[in-house]
Amino acid sequence: MVCGLPGIGSVAWLAVNHLQRELRAPLFAEVFSPMFSPKVWLTEEGVVGLMKGEFHFWKNKPGGPDLLLFTANEQPYSPEGQYELAEVALELARKFHASKVITMGGMATDRLAEPPKVYVGATDVNLVRESEAFGAVKLAGGAITGTNGLIFGLAKPKKIPAICLLAETPGYLSLDANAAKAALGLFTRMLNISVDLSALEKQAKENADAVQKAKDLSRAFPREARKGGDRELPYVS
Amino acid sequence: MVCGLPGIGSVAWLAVNHLQRELRAPLFAEVFSPMFSPKVWLTEEGVVGLMKGEFHFWKNKPGGPDLLLFTANEQPYSPEGQYELAEVALELARKFHASKVITMGGMATDRLAEPPKVYVGATDVNLVRESEAFGAVKLAGGAITGTNGLIFGLAKPKKIPAICLLAETPGYLSLDANAAKAALGLFTRMLNISVDLSALEKQAKENADAVQKAKDLSRAFPREARKGGDRELPYVS
Amino acid sequence: MVCGLPGIGSVAWLAVNHLQRELRAPLFAEVFSPMFSPKVWLTEEGVVGLMKGEFHFWKNKPGGPDLLLFTANEQPYSPEGQYELAEVALELARKFHASKVITMGGMATDRLAEPPKVYVGATDVNLVRESEAFGAVKLAGGAITGTNGLIFGLAKPKKIPAICLLAETPGYLSLDANAAKAALGLFTRMLNISVDLSALEKQAKENADAVQKAKDLSRAFPREARKGGDRELPYVS
Amino acid sequence: MVCGLPGIGSVAWLAVNHLQRELRAPLFAEVFSPMFSPKVWLTEEGVVGLMKGEFHFWKNKPGGPDLLLFTANEQPYSPEGQYELAEVALELARKFHASKVITMGGMATDRLAEPPKVYVGATDVNLVRESEAFGAVKLAGGAITGTNGLIFGLAKPKKIPAICLLAETPGYLSLDANAAKAALGLFTRMLNISVDLSALEKQAKENADAVQKAKDLSRAFPREARKGGDRELPYVS
Repeated sequence: MVCGLPGIGSVAWLAVNHLQRELRAPLFAEVFSPMFSPKVWLTEEGVVGLMKGEFHFWKNKPGGPDLLLFTANEQPYSPEGQYELAEVALELARKFHASKVITMGGMATDRLAEPPKVYVGATDVNLVRESEAFGAVKLAGGAITGTNGLIFGLAKPKKIPAICLLAETPGYLSLDANAAKAALGLFTRMLNISVDLSALEKQAKENADAVQKAKDLSRAFPREARKGGDRELPYVS
Repeated sequence: MVCGLPGIGSVAWLAVNHLQRELRAPLFAEVFSPMFSPKVWLTEEGVVGLMKGEFHFWKNKPGGPDLLLFTANEQPYSPEGQYELAEVALELARKFHASKVITMGGMATDRLAEPPKVYVGATDVNLVRESEAFGAVKLAGGAITGTNGLIFGLAKPKKIPAICLLAETPGYLSLDANAAKAALGLFTRMLNISVDLSALEKQAKENADAVQKAKDLSRAFPREARKGGDRELPYVS
Repeated sequence: MVCGLPGIGSVAWLAVNHLQRELRAPLFAEVFSPMFSPKVWLTEEGVVGLMKGEFHFWKNKPGGPDLLLFTANEQPYSPEGQYELAEVALELARKFHASKVITMGGMATDRLAEPPKVYVGATDVNLVRESEAFGAVKLAGGAITGTNGLIFGLAKPKKIPAICLLAETPGYLSLDANAAKAALGLFTRMLNISVDLSALEKQAKENADAVQKAKDLSRAFPREARKGGDRELPYVS
Repeated sequence: MVCGLPGIGSVAWLAVNHLQRELRAPLFAEVFSPMFSPKVWLTEEGVVGLMKGEFHFWKNKPGGPDLLLFTANEQPYSPEGQYELAEVALELARKFHASKVITMGGMATDRLAEPPKVYVGATDVNLVRESEAFGAVKLAGGAITGTNGLIFGLAKPKKIPAICLLAETPGYLSLDANAAKAALGLFTRMLNISVDLSALEKQAKENADAVQKAKDLSRAFPREARKGGDRELPYVS
């Protein structure tokens, strides 16, 4: 199972949604619950949609791992709701005998890394090492907040091997396609799945151009000397 | 079933209460719950009343639709309470085999529209189109917060066709009878029910006079140039 | 049953505690619950006590009404907790076939009334009138917040006749023995119970002296002209 | 059972963790729950850990009391969660027929006491006196907030004798090994258990040196006259 809920830079959400679209994985279960915000949204056609979690399923070619994709249009607003949603996701993983749970996320730094590093935490040391072999950087210490972290952590007492991949993202980007691409790239190499990342690449390129333009402007009109520009922030989600 | 809980401009609450009084629909069920505020209120006679939801039922002439009216003297204060109350209302709709759920609400703009537009969202495209044929304006995108939105949205997974009618209301009016009249007018045309709207009209006229007086005063003593006076605010309830 | 939980001026709490001590009504039930604050308190002997509700029972002489007294050392901190505690109290009232529920409270005004008026609300008009005959003043309109209000209001759908007595209290007194005496005086006249109020009277006298001293001081050093000194505040608890 | 959850100066947490390490008491039960924060943490090896409570058991030599140790890496964030965790701990104490429950904590003062006093509250007067005989100071009045207080207080209606030991700690220390040593010293004398406190002593010495250095600095650069330096703050956790 691969999980990606909205968080910093929407990294995980972008990654899992891209995966779902590229693999054309069909929807097979939805979660509505008072743990989500008390609101509804409307399409451009005026048709109502709910705040919810969605499970999509992708049947791989024989020999490769099938994928159970889990995402939602928001994280539950209460701490109890975040635990509840994590349990719902892991319960389904257990029913489908998922061999591994992989959650993604963003790790806020204040620099625009190229390419962004992908940090890894896991339920045991061997999984950390396997991930390092694919290019991930061990996340030594720290905390991961929110549902993406809970799904990952609560897998441990349920004896489901789990990995959390956190791509570097500058805190100021609300949709960081470049970080999503990095996380997804590592994910597909690890699972030996072929996924076209060009749509994410295109979006990342547009982001980079916009950021460059903003930088050019700020250089033309400098306001104060920047300091600590490469310092990593400890905030992770 | 038609639902109208307090919200912006009290549009839905005014509309459903007016409907109940004009149709003389008798009370047949009440909902008391810790989801409401921990307080009670008193009548002019000193008799206590509770915070609660009320269901009224109106028996139509043969051939026309009967009406189940739902309202409450406040929205539940917690997000979970709003989901809970929406479920209570939809459960009753299901027990009564309601063929359609119609919720109302106000859409805050900063102008006094005459007549106010009535926006529509629905559980499917055909219902949106049918409503447009009666003069409603498609609500393309956006979110609807609160119980009126949840009753409407949660009807969808329950397979009950549902419509949400949102009348334009300037954010500064706490009781906008003009918007309530507009929403109720569209509602009665859609259901082919005849309801005397003169009491709402009278109240709307009094409101308009009061607002005009305030405007005259503010013109006599201008403080700053107004800008963006016709800009619509995206807030909806 | 007579109920008095802490609130404005601690009026109800003082009244019911005084009643319990004077009648030497023995404790027969306690309520511990997560609806209370997560803390404990210690006596002067270092012995721990919990946040809790207490029920005391007083056996009257033949012919007179027995009394079930309910109080607590605080109101539950959450709205749901206040509903829950009100239900606990009313459930016990029902088990004991209580013929009437009387809750007390303070009504904040910004004057020191002598004697303080006692306002009344009830579950029906006849109870309001009966109370008026004993000197209570009808509470026409307004809201009563908190558990004392909820016990009173929730008695109505349970078909238990209920009265709420609210004694005037200046908002600045944290323990208003004078208001408690006024509420309790009316209560004992209504139930034809003889209770020695001298301890409350003594405390009230001390309060009055302290306030007078403060007033003398403030007259000696006037800071600003007082305005609206007799205006009643609408806040009630 | 001895309980020590994080609180002021982390006194109780330090004490119980030290006890667990010195006695090499093995882990035998864990509590995961939505009552904890929605986050996970990572070891230096990148392996995930959960927010949780832990029970360790220590088998004493024949004749001496066995120990059930309870601690957690945080206190539940909600009041209801704190009650819930206290119930979980006491339920286990009951299952193990624990003869006594001892919780620890810090009592914030604004002085660095040497040695810190250890205050005591208990479920009955005899336990207070027994503790005084070992050097504890009776806690006359006041309140104890948080889970350490609730475990102690809720033991009372469960008829489990309980003691709460609160060591003086200056509010500005986040890890007060000196206070932990004082509480643990009294605890081991009371239970006649031999525990090496040298690790706590060493840490306390380092703390004291750091504080002395800070004081020297502040004396060299005095900013304002200190007042009330020995006044005890009433805050207890």
